[in-house]
Amino acid sequence: MRDMTETTPVELLVCTTCRRGLPVEDDAQRPGTLLHKALEQAALPEGITLKAVECLSNCDEGCSIVLRGGPDRWTFVYEHLSETDHVETIIEGATKYLQTEDGLVKWRERPEHFRKNCAARIPPIGALK
Amino acid sequence: MRDMTETTPVELLVCTTCRRGLPVEDDAQRPGTLLHKALEQAALPEGITLKAVECLSNCDEGCSIVLRGGPDRWTFVYEHLSETDHVETIIEGATKYLQTEDGLVKWRERPEHFRKNCAARIPPIGALK
Repeated sequence: MRDMTETTPVELLVCTTCRRGLPVEDDAQRPGTLLHKALEQAALPEGITLKAVECLSNCDEGCSIVLRGGPDRWTFVYEHLSETDHVETIIEGATKYLQTEDGLVKWRERPEHFRKNCAARIPPIGALK
Repeated sequence: MRDMTETTPVELLVCTTCRRGLPVEDDAQRPGTLLHKALEQAALPEGITLKAVECLSNCDEGCSIVLRGGPDRWTFVYEHLSETDHVETIIEGATKYLQTEDGLVKWRERPEHFRKNCAARIPPIGALK
């Protein structure tokens, strides 16, 4: 395991406008906002910055997050997340992602929810010829 | 409409390993590879570079592409694309994307397939506080 302080910082983006298909009227109670709040209150490791995004445009498969971190890492989008069930999963997956240089956590080491609910991965800038 | 030569270059990434749910044995005939070939043979405007990616990890909803272009544009992932039906759609959408500074083509100006088949959008680096 790498020393986390050696790696480029990571951003954890949370779609705060997500309704997760629910007829929510109160913006402050949207599932995406609640997921963001739950992660704010959780203990994210140093090197991971939580950020709110208004709509990641994955509305039918929410709640959604993005993990990215500098020009050398793959970016990942994960979906079907909830504020009640997946806070620890997200922290575990984000922590392992932080510990990589290229963003590619070994398949069997990824949280099961991440393995089964990846919406997309995008290569690092400069990785392609 | 902006002069395309003023804008940051755009990358059009195509997932070449996509099987689009088909039991394809021949790698050279995978739908993703065929989509990439069809776009190679099409007339992409100057400023858009086509690149192949091995797996964008959106396997259940392929074929998939990514549009990105510099630190100021949103990145978009589109899905449910085929080499027979969507080459012109992709060129139209990519051309409009190229003409923007921030990657945000007005909703009603996006190709209908793009409006209905966006897998995710990711904000530009530095856009978030």
